[in-house]
Amino acid sequence: MQLKEELIESHTIYRGRVVTLRIDTVRLPSGRTARREIVEHRGAVAIVPLLNPETVLLIRQYRQAVGETLLEIPAGTLEPDESPDVCARRELEEETGYAARQLRKLFSQYLAPGYSQEVLHVYLAEDLAPVAQRLDEDEAVELVPTPLQAVEAMVLEGQIKDSKTIAGLLMTLRLLEGERK
Amino acid sequence: MQLKEELIESHTIYRGRVVTLRIDTVRLPSGRTARREIVEHRGAVAIVPLLNPETVLLIRQYRQAVGETLLEIPAGTLEPDESPDVCARRELEEETGYAARQLRKLFSQYLAPGYSQEVLHVYLAEDLAPVAQRLDEDEAVELVPTPLQAVEAMVLEGQIKDSKTIAGLLMTLRLLEGERK
Repeated sequence: MQLKEELIESHTIYRGRVVTLRIDTVRLPSGRTARREIVEHRGAVAIVPLLNPETVLLIRQYRQAVGETLLEIPAGTLEPDESPDVCARRELEEETGYAARQLRKLFSQYLAPGYSQEVLHVYLAEDLAPVAQRLDEDEAVELVPTPLQAVEAMVLEGQIKDSKTIAGLLMTLRLLEGERK
Repeated sequence: MQLKEELIESHTIYRGRVVTLRIDTVRLPSGRTARREIVEHRGAVAIVPLLNPETVLLIRQYRQAVGETLLEIPAGTLEPDESPDVCARRELEEETGYAARQLRKLFSQYLAPGYSQEVLHVYLAEDLAPVAQRLDEDEAVELVPTPLQAVEAMVLEGQIKDSKTIAGLLMTLRLLEGERK
């Protein structure tokens, strides 16, 4: 089946600091044309930091887009030309004050491919060593060590509701349980 | 710790069909001000449809925002005033041609709370009965029945890279394995 859409024209509405909004006109497989509203984004990383095999270090921060504080795994946007691995180590140290002696890539995911270009690379960080926490001047973040075995119930009960955090934690649970078998 | 940001002013840059872009100026806990680029969105649902206890029905569709076809669980945006339960049944029937005799809500998640308001409600659909598939005229979608036991490897190998699909499938695996114990 022909699924691909063909780009006819593209124009940028707004160039922001985090996101850029553009409108694409595409030709559909049916032959008709359609408009697609697209959010451009540089990409990001997120890190599941294990303090020990039973405890994950989450962070709590306010998110103006949704008007509430959320419990999340540490994450951050790629700097221009920064590799995801380097970004993962940098964000982990800045946000939590820990460096990872072991860092492994788990998977990459598109967060909202219906309209957003953003790809997010998810890492598992183990064997952590304390370093100085270096939050950006305006970053207000609370560290929340959390039992790994509690996270599934926390998702089902609505205490964890950030998608990258849910996917990263559930994959970590499956991998660790598989390795312990 | 004070985490909340206080809204000072807000203005809309662009009102689209799927997304609206606005810029908020906020006062940070530190007392300084900052600008937040925010994508407004009506919210959406996604459904994990089980054809039988071992097989999930995925769909493949082209996503212009990321420039490739993706393997996803069925999903769609809430109509104005539509409840998530009603939307989940509607989208499942329209996109797959199946109605669910059993539909249970799993969890809700914010897809990209750093800049997007979008909340997505995730459902598990079981005991499916065929009805007529009713795709929108311009929707091109391929149905892909997939062994549930293969999905973890498909995420790690990059064959499944949509965040709602990853979170929904991993939670389904955990729930079904818990129920079979």
